Amino acid sequence: MLQSQLFTKIRREAPKDEVAKNAQLLIRAGFIHKEMAGVYALLPLGLRVVKNIKHIVREEMDALGSQEILMTSLQRKELWEETDRWDDEKVDVWFKSRLKNNVEVGFGWSHEEPITKMLIGSIESFRDLPVCVYQFQTKLRNELRAKSGIMRGREFVMKDMYSYSRTEEDHKKFYDATIEAYNRVYARIGIGKDTFFTFASGGAFTQFSHEFQTITEAGEDIVYLHREKKMAINKEVLTNEVLEQLHMKREELEEVKTSEVGNIFGFGGKKCEDLGLFFMDEDGQKKPVILGSYGIGITRLMGVVVEKFADEKGLVWPEEVAPFRVHILSLDNEKDEEVKQSAHTLYQELSEKGIEVLLDDRPMRAGEKFAESDFLGIPYRIVVSKRSLEQSGFELKKRSEEESQVVSKEQLIEKCVSK
Amino acid sequence: MLQSQLFTKIRREAPKDEVAKNAQLLIRAGFIHKEMAGVYALLPLGLRVVKNIKHIVREEMDALGSQEILMTSLQRKELWEETDRWDDEKVDVWFKSRLKNNVEVGFGWSHEEPITKMLIGSIESFRDLPVCVYQFQTKLRNELRAKSGIMRGREFVMKDMYSYSRTEEDHKKFYDATIEAYNRVYARIGIGKDTFFTFASGGAFTQFSHEFQTITEAGEDIVYLHREKKMAINKEVLTNEVLEQLHMKREELEEVKTSEVGNIFGFGGKKCEDLGLFFMDEDGQKKPVILGSYGIGITRLMGVVVEKFADEKGLVWPEEVAPFRVHILSLDNEKDEEVKQSAHTLYQELSEKGIEVLLDDRPMRAGEKFAESDFLGIPYRIVVSKRSLEQSGFELKKRSEEESQVVSKEQLIEKCVSK
Repeated sequence: MLQSQLFTKIRREAPKDEVAKNAQLLIRAGFIHKEMAGVYALLPLGLRVVKNIKHIVREEMDALGSQEILMTSLQRKELWEETDRWDDEKVDVWFKSRLKNNVEVGFGWSHEEPITKMLIGSIESFRDLPVCVYQFQTKLRNELRAKSGIMRGREFVMKDMYSYSRTEEDHKKFYDATIEAYNRVYARIGIGKDTFFTFASGGAFTQFSHEFQTITEAGEDIVYLHREKKMAINKEVLTNEVLEQLHMKREELEEVKTSEVGNIFGFGGKKCEDLGLFFMDEDGQKKPVILGSYGIGITRLMGVVVEKFADEKGLVWPEEVAPFRVHILSLDNEKDEEVKQSAHTLYQELSEKGIEVLLDDRPMRAGEKFAESDFLGIPYRIVVSKRSLEQSGFELKKRSEEESQVVSKEQLIEKCVSK
Repeated sequence: MLQSQLFTKIRREAPKDEVAKNAQLLIRAGFIHKEMAGVYALLPLGLRVVKNIKHIVREEMDALGSQEILMTSLQRKELWEETDRWDDEKVDVWFKSRLKNNVEVGFGWSHEEPITKMLIGSIESFRDLPVCVYQFQTKLRNELRAKSGIMRGREFVMKDMYSYSRTEEDHKKFYDATIEAYNRVYARIGIGKDTFFTFASGGAFTQFSHEFQTITEAGEDIVYLHREKKMAINKEVLTNEVLEQLHMKREELEEVKTSEVGNIFGFGGKKCEDLGLFFMDEDGQKKPVILGSYGIGITRLMGVVVEKFADEKGLVWPEEVAPFRVHILSLDNEKDEEVKQSAHTLYQELSEKGIEVLLDDRPMRAGEKFAESDFLGIPYRIVVSKRSLEQSGFELKKRSEEESQVVSKEQLIEKCVSK
């Protein structure tokens, strides 16, 4: 894309009421727009990041054999009454409204109820199992406070997935496969090394739920980390009994601040029983289906990546999520026809190779272009200037490194295409 | 995809309260699930169709230089008060709710207000123009009645686009380019020949708005069609003055029932003026930006395609929007190992060539497989059976044609890959 065409501009200041670092940086860089507290629109650069994260998650969920669907935001009251989750006393994040005929409706803050209900008729016999479905859904949650930027919003994109199994053993097998898939997602997003499988509170259905927690200064959670085992225990469940059960000793654990980037848990058969989703087993018995739930906050992940990698110069994007892979800065292109031509040719050549490139073709001082490029945080920066052309090459620098080097076009393509 | 893995099943009956043919067929075929009147979830097959339609629309909008964004569902009251469209007396499709602090919020039924507001700061000078942005947004509209299935829902996916121009002349140029882009969209979706550029009521801002109307029996509109000029006039504006203005005679016109598949219009400078979006022109004057609005109902288009092409055997999908391009029926595969192997090999070969294939590998009678395949409406059906193997070929039939033919694998690949 030509940067002269991009409608967003880099701003010196974020809105005064914005307190979260992730949102401040993303607003200033033109990735998102603040509609109200906890509600952010995605502008072209931000939408690109979100699409990249969704692409990674989609590939890994598809590989599990999960099928993508898209449920609705509007929710029927009766459905949620069946599991006693309509009442505001029970669920305190509902947005509700009324149809013209005065019938009350809710806006989806979660979707296991409607998805389970939808599957009645599709799951009838043990032969129909297992089934796994997922969606990328805009969740609406009436949060009391929304001060963490895009890490905890009133409106946000979530990948939620639900597995329906015949037995607890089948469920366990799928659950374990999902843990592996989640680990692949975090590795690809660039936070794998600092993300830990964590034991957390299980609620009404199981002893533990499991979280994936990423070490970040901005984190709202405290977990106790066993680096050797690559596992952690959420502070909320750290007791002597739990330590014993998990074969860990308190002195082996390290207290760290983290952000939750995934959450998975089992419901057993209870939820399907409440909603009437049963199957006929081989033995002729009618049994409730075993349900598992698996969430990843997509827009939240973008926030965590910002908090984790941004430095004093601005954003720093890992390669697989970056809005563009390469940022070409064409210096003094309004005065120097040779620079202008050379930059455009390079832009086209890289684009034809399937590399996503942003070309800064604006008439702007070199110093400003450098500063803005650092602020946007695109992984590879290539400078085309009178000087680089004299050296018959291009100046290449990674955003995450200090030193640049002058390379030939062949070297450049090799470096930018391969990881 | 293996059909044995697909969780949806074909149903003999649609819900009793469903009166629209498009929703009846799509529910029975497992493309959508009815949550409540006018609110439908997208199941795997339906989501594939919607993704294909979005892909076509995205390519054509990108080619116009339009930039994709994603606004929010939650809307601030103050913003809509600026253009006097918050009051239920003025806009009767709002869903509204309240934050925990009792502040009233709305759910987006349209987005020109928030998008225009968002652009303040990005559009400051004539040098920043033109700008064009679009999104695929889930719109929420509190419709009094919702009886047209996915053709008019309370929750639906819409592509809405907004162009911001310096002058009326620039606006007109972009407007005309968009008409061409829309025509390409409808041609690719398969309804080009029966879709007509139509003069309709312009509302407060211009004399005419323009619609794209597709001839369908299920249509809710009546338009007067000038076949030769490939133009139409909506009944609502058909007067002698209008006929004269458009150089048409009443006797040249043909009355047809149509469905609206697109709607475009200009706002002049009024909307931007109300919302405070001005630019500094070259002459030093502060001027309001000229706004154009361009909508395509994505899920609505799916409904129109169903209504238009479905026959007595079921759905019929045009090639570019079909959930799969090829449907392989493997007959008696549970008994005949050679058939089973041959079908799987073909499935893999076609998939590797990038062709989307659904393989019916279920243990089911041949007659049922044929009937279900017709009902799903995938464009190319390939039968692999003992008989076809004896003829050392594959039986290929297009859904839109009556006759099948036995072809070699090479012929088959050629026919399925090229259009």
